[in-house]
Amino acid sequence: MKKITVKDLEYISLGSTILGTGGGGDPYIGKLLAKKSIEDYGDVSLIKAEELDDDALVVPIAAFGAPMILVEKLFSGNEFYSAFEMMESYLGRKIDAVMPAEAGGLNGVIPLAVAAKKQIPIVDADGMGRAFPRLEMVTFTLHGISVSPITQADEKGNKNVYDTINNVWGETLVGATTIQMGGSCAIGCYPMSGAQVKKAAVHGIISYAQVLGEAILNAKKHQKNPIDSLIEKADAIQLFSGKISNITIKTEGRWNKGLCEIMGLGEDSGSTMELDFQNEFLMAKKNGKPVAITPDLIVLIDAENAHPITAETIQYGTRVIVLGMKADEQWRTPEGIELGGPEKFGYTEKFVPVEILND
Amino acid sequence: MKKITVKDLEYISLGSTILGTGGGGDPYIGKLLAKKSIEDYGDVSLIKAEELDDDALVVPIAAFGAPMILVEKLFSGNEFYSAFEMMESYLGRKIDAVMPAEAGGLNGVIPLAVAAKKQIPIVDADGMGRAFPRLEMVTFTLHGISVSPITQADEKGNKNVYDTINNVWGETLVGATTIQMGGSCAIGCYPMSGAQVKKAAVHGIISYAQVLGEAILNAKKHQKNPIDSLIEKADAIQLFSGKISNITIKTEGRWNKGLCEIMGLGEDSGSTMELDFQNEFLMAKKNGKPVAITPDLIVLIDAENAHPITAETIQYGTRVIVLGMKADEQWRTPEGIELGGPEKFGYTEKFVPVEILND
Repeated sequence: MKKITVKDLEYISLGSTILGTGGGGDPYIGKLLAKKSIEDYGDVSLIKAEELDDDALVVPIAAFGAPMILVEKLFSGNEFYSAFEMMESYLGRKIDAVMPAEAGGLNGVIPLAVAAKKQIPIVDADGMGRAFPRLEMVTFTLHGISVSPITQADEKGNKNVYDTINNVWGETLVGATTIQMGGSCAIGCYPMSGAQVKKAAVHGIISYAQVLGEAILNAKKHQKNPIDSLIEKADAIQLFSGKISNITIKTEGRWNKGLCEIMGLGEDSGSTMELDFQNEFLMAKKNGKPVAITPDLIVLIDAENAHPITAETIQYGTRVIVLGMKADEQWRTPEGIELGGPEKFGYTEKFVPVEILND
Repeated sequence: MKKITVKDLEYISLGSTILGTGGGGDPYIGKLLAKKSIEDYGDVSLIKAEELDDDALVVPIAAFGAPMILVEKLFSGNEFYSAFEMMESYLGRKIDAVMPAEAGGLNGVIPLAVAAKKQIPIVDADGMGRAFPRLEMVTFTLHGISVSPITQADEKGNKNVYDTINNVWGETLVGATTIQMGGSCAIGCYPMSGAQVKKAAVHGIISYAQVLGEAILNAKKHQKNPIDSLIEKADAIQLFSGKISNITIKTEGRWNKGLCEIMGLGEDSGSTMELDFQNEFLMAKKNGKPVAITPDLIVLIDAENAHPITAETIQYGTRVIVLGMKADEQWRTPEGIELGGPEKFGYTEKFVPVEILND
């Protein structure tokens, strides 16, 4: 067991943004909520899944909505505690630990705020090892775990429970009310036993986010370039180097959809890259040919300091580097590719691992 | 206390269609469900609100959605029991009696199916004395009673609970998921104490529906014309007589919206009437001038047999009579007019009682 302090938050939130692959929501507001909560209630215990009792009750707590909306429609913080308390009340028992549903973006740090306030540990695991735009797109689904009951709370005080027949219906119904709530809310979902977490989660992901954050922020200490340091720790492949030449983005329902075009510089001079996104970057094409495909991770970083850039904050003219990272092995199975692969998002291309595309 | 039998269903469902003022959904499917349930479980006790204990738990059970959709997307019946059971489970206590939220249309008979199966009485009262298209448009709202918790179930097996900050949010959130569910579902709402029912409901409305149904179906027995018989029992004003000359209707979200045009015959020859509807008929204009305005009741009946015609079944060429009926006094207060009056539906005309408009 390790304690997560306010200092660790800097690293974890930066690493979560890397894992957010352009989506997941900017962790800034989540970091502030977690910071306040840790300052008020103390450091958070980070435990490994194997430390859980098999019959422990573990509940992922998450922000739900379009990243673009989160920039202007702030959370009060209370909605996360409401979603947590509603789950305890609906299930009629205490929650033993929280965890992220997705360690990418905002949702990598939000559960820390809840863990601190509720004085319970956070499990070093999530259901993605990245970020994805739909509620059913988690490794939990691959293991037949139900998203329901889902608890939902907004900053106004509405709080609901959904008991759906499958995980896609969870996304459909909670998605519909989230739009009415203004495009964002807090949810509790996939209530699980300790035994289920051990079997179905992506493990060690919070620690991994911290490692990635440290790789960037502490690179100078080790006389390293932060980009090289990140590539090394993330086992990433540099896909492209260039300058943002165009960005189209729109908020459609609770999704940011768009295309980011990059003009090559240096060794990529004369080439272009297109990053297609639906909250997250899902397809990277160099000169029209795929070089990284969901569920593998596509990460856009600032060439100055290796800080990740989320889709809603892309700006014309920024010098960037695009990295490809391998998805967790669970995503690379036929079931994983069916759930989070390119066809799910309407692409005609088949999934090919990033290391093979760039061999 | 009176027993409601299968025979009574014919009268009640016909009277409910009158009170549905063109909306509320055709009671046919509801009548079948109630018939089956009464045959299987026995007659239903109809009790007066004053017979309730002050601390009894009473829950209106209703179908929710666009009447047009109910024509093709049938209920399984189980969704009403699910909504009932979900409410008992969420509140952690047994429900002592059900009642209609609206006695108009389908929802006048649906609670009978639940009462029979659950072997509990139905209260002779509702929250409208008619039908209205939005969940917050009930006299309960006028008395500050919360629509929440709302339970919701669909024919597929999804079942949810909403705990909203006010009654309009109930409509907004449940409306959004109802559309995703295919446009219809079952709900439990406005859980109330016996004391609240006594104070806030429109009383005697199921008995009144039965009286209206009998007035039509038994008219011949008493050597009467069914139209005259209905007008007498309903204290109605004949607004127009003519032939359907045009009908425009569309399903917008979970509402049927449209306009029914009638060409005058007999003493109305040379005149025209327009009935504007949003599920229910809300505005009747003769030669461009209002002759009946929501919340007063506008009822379209077949000139052949006095049977009411719902908006989604209006057919070109049918000979019809339009009746105006006074709304319950609760709707004619300033608060009632604000909640269910013409401005609420976007009309610029002010509410004027039907008997004054036709004086």
